[in-house]
Amino acid sequence: MTPSKINFSEKFSKLSADDYSVRIIAKMNDYEFKIVKFKGEFVWHSHDDTDETFIILEGKMLMHFRDKIVEINSGEMIVIPKGIEHKPTSKEGYKAILIEPEGTSNTGDAESSEATISKIEWI
Amino acid sequence: MTPSKINFSEKFSKLSADDYSVRIIAKMNDYEFKIVKFKGEFVWHSHDDTDETFIILEGKMLMHFRDKIVEINSGEMIVIPKGIEHKPTSKEGYKAILIEPEGTSNTGDAESSEATISKIEWI
Repeated sequence: MTPSKINFSEKFSKLSADDYSVRIIAKMNDYEFKIVKFKGEFVWHSHDDTDETFIILEGKMLMHFRDKIVEINSGEMIVIPKGIEHKPTSKEGYKAILIEPEGTSNTGDAESSEATISKIEWI
Repeated sequence: MTPSKINFSEKFSKLSADDYSVRIIAKMNDYEFKIVKFKGEFVWHSHDDTDETFIILEGKMLMHFRDKIVEINSGEMIVIPKGIEHKPTSKEGYKAILIEPEGTSNTGDAESSEATISKIEWI
């Protein structure tokens, strides 16, 4: 079937006012594209089986690693290699596109975190 | 190794003034992220083995399919399903992020096209 385009602003406008929301917006082969809205301090975690990519659309993310902090702004991306511990934080909040294989846990090996979402929904 | 961020504007600033340029900027598992700058009319083609994703950063793309044309602007994306014939065109030009498995041909099944790039380089 011929595909339709996806508008990021339209998708984000459907999210609640919560500081953290993540929803699936598209699928490419066995990878998912997700919109993520986040403000605050996430949990330390790693994904042992896969890399994952963040593209920042709005705001600022501080991606903490054990040896440094990387500031990522709108118009920038980062690929987190598998197995590398990381923790996103943001005082101002950010909106991002997250790309990773379907079924990837949002908290990786930190599965019992209160931030863990057992099933991420489409929007 | 802890990763660094990638700034799209910085990467695009390194491209030549040609109407068509495509370069690899990142790798996630066995997928590549490419920057694409295009103006004009591309060739009809399809990718028989994979979907591919365009995220438009600047300008406007008209993605032609055999049954319709989809206009894609900045802040929008489209996933082209494998096997679906498509042809990007743009009067004004566009800048985009292209995501697909490494080794995907830029002209898919239209391998003998003059637009075909035998080896896409990193930038």
